[in-house]
Amino acid sequence: MSFASTWADLAPVGRADDGGYRRFAWTAEDHTLREWFAGEASSRGLDLMTDRAGNQWAWWGDPDATPGVVTGSHLDSVPGGGAFDGPLGVVSAFAALDQLRERGVTPRRPLGIANFVDEEGARFGVACAGSRLITGVLDADRALGLRDADGVTMADAWRAAGRDPGTLGPDDEALRRVAAFVELHVEQGRGLVHGDDPVGVGRMIWPHGRWRVELRGEANHAGTTPLADRRDPMLDLAAFVGHAREAAQQHGALATVGKVRVDPNGVNAIPSQVTAWLDVRAESADAVDAVLAALADYAPAQESWTPATVLDADLADTVAGAVSGVLGGSPRLSTGAGHDAGILAAAGIPTAMLFVRNPTGVSHAPTEDADEADCLAGIDALAAALERLLA
Amino acid sequence: MSFASTWADLAPVGRADDGGYRRFAWTAEDHTLREWFAGEASSRGLDLMTDRAGNQWAWWGDPDATPGVVTGSHLDSVPGGGAFDGPLGVVSAFAALDQLRERGVTPRRPLGIANFVDEEGARFGVACAGSRLITGVLDADRALGLRDADGVTMADAWRAAGRDPGTLGPDDEALRRVAAFVELHVEQGRGLVHGDDPVGVGRMIWPHGRWRVELRGEANHAGTTPLADRRDPMLDLAAFVGHAREAAQQHGALATVGKVRVDPNGVNAIPSQVTAWLDVRAESADAVDAVLAALADYAPAQESWTPATVLDADLADTVAGAVSGVLGGSPRLSTGAGHDAGILAAAGIPTAMLFVRNPTGVSHAPTEDADEADCLAGIDALAAALERLLA
Repeated sequence: MSFASTWADLAPVGRADDGGYRRFAWTAEDHTLREWFAGEASSRGLDLMTDRAGNQWAWWGDPDATPGVVTGSHLDSVPGGGAFDGPLGVVSAFAALDQLRERGVTPRRPLGIANFVDEEGARFGVACAGSRLITGVLDADRALGLRDADGVTMADAWRAAGRDPGTLGPDDEALRRVAAFVELHVEQGRGLVHGDDPVGVGRMIWPHGRWRVELRGEANHAGTTPLADRRDPMLDLAAFVGHAREAAQQHGALATVGKVRVDPNGVNAIPSQVTAWLDVRAESADAVDAVLAALADYAPAQESWTPATVLDADLADTVAGAVSGVLGGSPRLSTGAGHDAGILAAAGIPTAMLFVRNPTGVSHAPTEDADEADCLAGIDALAAALERLLA
Repeated sequence: MSFASTWADLAPVGRADDGGYRRFAWTAEDHTLREWFAGEASSRGLDLMTDRAGNQWAWWGDPDATPGVVTGSHLDSVPGGGAFDGPLGVVSAFAALDQLRERGVTPRRPLGIANFVDEEGARFGVACAGSRLITGVLDADRALGLRDADGVTMADAWRAAGRDPGTLGPDDEALRRVAAFVELHVEQGRGLVHGDDPVGVGRMIWPHGRWRVELRGEANHAGTTPLADRRDPMLDLAAFVGHAREAAQQHGALATVGKVRVDPNGVNAIPSQVTAWLDVRAESADAVDAVLAALADYAPAQESWTPATVLDADLADTVAGAVSGVLGGSPRLSTGAGHDAGILAAAGIPTAMLFVRNPTGVSHAPTEDADEADCLAGIDALAAALERLLA
């Protein structure tokens, strides 16, 4: 089966008229994607396993006899997301396995392909929920109580999908089967564009965190309150957005105010409060700390923190060697985005990442892109890396 | 019945723990308030009429024989509103009628008390909906299709309240009964505090309008997009809020950004678009125009515009004379807030307003306030004005 035809099979699932994708965990779209995964596994004679978080694993060989090498990614999306973030890693995994079989490679240990549930956290607010659950980083009871925008809990969503929420939890058995994990992903940025390389090898995932800032004012009538008498938190929001950008620039970090809540959010009402969420990432935790220190007047409250994930250096060298063998080069990249690979690495599993060039550099939006030639180069690179790791 | 006991009857309806009120049109709270109004009318032997927009009118005398003088206001609130904005005018109307009867005044024409529906527009988004509907300024079909935050149309809300949406529309018969209208209202500002006066007489309602500004950017991943590659509309919002405040200051106007919508509003997503609503008011339309001209780069789209309402000068003189007779003075005030009085004035009905001192100057919030002594002074002033107008 060619990459192009498999890709075309997936393309219509959850796609809106403007090209943006909406593939949320445990929805009808997700069900279709999970059935597609099961079908691809079945047509190749792979053994389909589902772990206690609902992540899907398709195995060539018996990982309960010998732990194997796993590749894959996720099929869910952010709201209005692109086609590549996630699915490219899953489709490339099946294509790389096909290539190994066509070349008559006989693996010395099993090869697994994974589809992680709810990587984007778009429905229940926790990113990498599938990998966090099996590694125990996310508590099952807390997860089951999370609600989506319609107030539906994850427990209800599981029941609606025909699953028993009582089975959700850490899954050491599933993790014991994984000797190493390689995730291929579209680049979210233009590092490979600048270096004119189709494929790169991951070095680290930046430390990143989320903070909440509550800007309090005094609700009042927009038509009758003199400017001098106002305590308008919308002005504080304006100042905060500017200061966050300045601090990020000064310390070589990324800072984003992407989410805001205004109370009461009426056209003719000076707000009583504006709440803003701040996302900060940088190559070093020190740079993140410096940004937060510059914003200390706003009393940011930390909602989450993920330390730097340095990917396994030996595994990266092996993968880079294999990639250079087929593509003639393998630049190293760091990324500010979190991935299931980072969660597995933090759980002690040797983990590597491959990135495929993205001409726009955009991700989480319909203009996210990858040329077919680069996708095929990524598959060649992944197959070469897997062949070396399975030998 | 004393002012204090009537006020205490109303106080618990729709009040939250923090003291803020939520009294939205055609809800259970509104039903309780309408029943209270009917009970007050009935206990005084007044004739209760309901017009084609659902506004309530309690008449002393037959307004179909001779058009009468009407006083009153509204009982609904903004979300988290104060106790006085609206109800003070309705309770004072009943108290002033009681005072006239106690003094043995025999009116030469009928006296009416009005409770206008949905003055704040908090549920369906259109302020002064009741008076705009009977004067035909708001089209009935458009109104019936308006939706509240839960997606319920005004037509559905009418049916749920046991009313026939087919009867909604302009009501010339109800308007023909009104020879003059006097609305008493808590001051939304501190003009009377600065002048040390308990009560003032309205001069004009400022021209005011609402505009929508669409700030477009490019959705992208907050963790991977270099600052230099971003088109982040949150930065444009910050600049817009600052420019709006500057322009208002420069031209002696009021400008408020009280409502904002962020798409997709995700913590780790650079927004694709931020939509901001701008409210601008000033003593002159020229000043409002100057503010908008200063913000032309943001291409504000007008959503509504209400020209200046100059209240009837002869009626204001009559009212001011009566007020001075009982309180020894009657300063003139202009206001930036819209009122049903403004809608009736624009429809050609001679209209006056009385304002009662508000120590905090705050309105549309729980700290909105009026001393009982000032409320009683307001009732005395209203009774004196009505006595003169009914003679």
